[in-house]
Amino acid sequence: MNKGFVLWFTGLSGSGKSTIADRVKEELLKKNIPIEQLDGDEVREHLTRDLGFSKEDRDENIRRIAFVAKLLSRNKVGIIASFISPYEDIRKEVRDSVTNFIEIYVNAPLEVCEARDVKGLYKKARAGEIKNFTGISDPYEEPKNPEIELKTDKSSIEECVKQVIHYLKEVYQLDL
Amino acid sequence: MNKGFVLWFTGLSGSGKSTIADRVKEELLKKNIPIEQLDGDEVREHLTRDLGFSKEDRDENIRRIAFVAKLLSRNKVGIIASFISPYEDIRKEVRDSVTNFIEIYVNAPLEVCEARDVKGLYKKARAGEIKNFTGISDPYEEPKNPEIELKTDKSSIEECVKQVIHYLKEVYQLDL
Repeated sequence: MNKGFVLWFTGLSGSGKSTIADRVKEELLKKNIPIEQLDGDEVREHLTRDLGFSKEDRDENIRRIAFVAKLLSRNKVGIIASFISPYEDIRKEVRDSVTNFIEIYVNAPLEVCEARDVKGLYKKARAGEIKNFTGISDPYEEPKNPEIELKTDKSSIEECVKQVIHYLKEVYQLDL
Repeated sequence: MNKGFVLWFTGLSGSGKSTIADRVKEELLKKNIPIEQLDGDEVREHLTRDLGFSKEDRDENIRRIAFVAKLLSRNKVGIIASFISPYEDIRKEVRDSVTNFIEIYVNAPLEVCEARDVKGLYKKARAGEIKNFTGISDPYEEPKNPEIELKTDKSSIEECVKQVIHYLKEVYQLDL
């Protein structure tokens, strides 16, 4: 029997959240685990297009996602969510509202994320063209006790994926 | 094996949508069908508290609900949703985006709904204290081909509930 859960990837822009989340999803789908992925673009289009990047708007953004994740996870669906989600208090709210919250801190130093700068966002943030940019002009509150910590400056993507799958299998005892 | 579906109750304020929806939910839970109910208060609190009653806001309201209903229904959860949802085009959008949309037109004449006026809203709408009130100052576009039509001025609540359950069993072939 399936168990619902929420894999919550949090970390700076460029830390590797989405890349790892996509690969974890692939692995779980191979094992016929029912999965829904909640990521930036789809959520923004359908749920939160009215919201900006102030703390208030970021919190409301995460709250709407938490509501969806709550309904799905209690119906035995596995959720893969990747959002910067920089604030500890709101991550705590998600943890308290969903079934089986598994916090995954995708940890890479700011310098590394900024050097990668895949989408050119850090450059724009440094130039002041983007405001409220996490790590530059907005805080990122590190998870204190994440279920999983992935150090993407030291481990390869595949190693990180294995670490997540290992957790689901051994600690969470998902039938993989 | 469960099938996902969306029971979408549409109709005027006071038509009996929520009362029937609540009772249908009870009956399905008795049969261990996985059900999530999406109704006004919970959705407004968690998903749409920024929205008002203009056509644009009503449409955005229904679109967010449709997104949630899509994710749940394709994961074999039965959804019970009751919203006035007065516009044909947006109900069509919901139909096209979710798995197994079952439109239930809760049909009672405006005079009957207004005479019931359980929450005193019609009185306020007539006095101009509430604007954009469906049936009074805003249109209600009747469903043209609903899967189920319930005439709550002619049938009792329990008869309506039976009609919905009968549909799910005989037409939709849910294992009840």
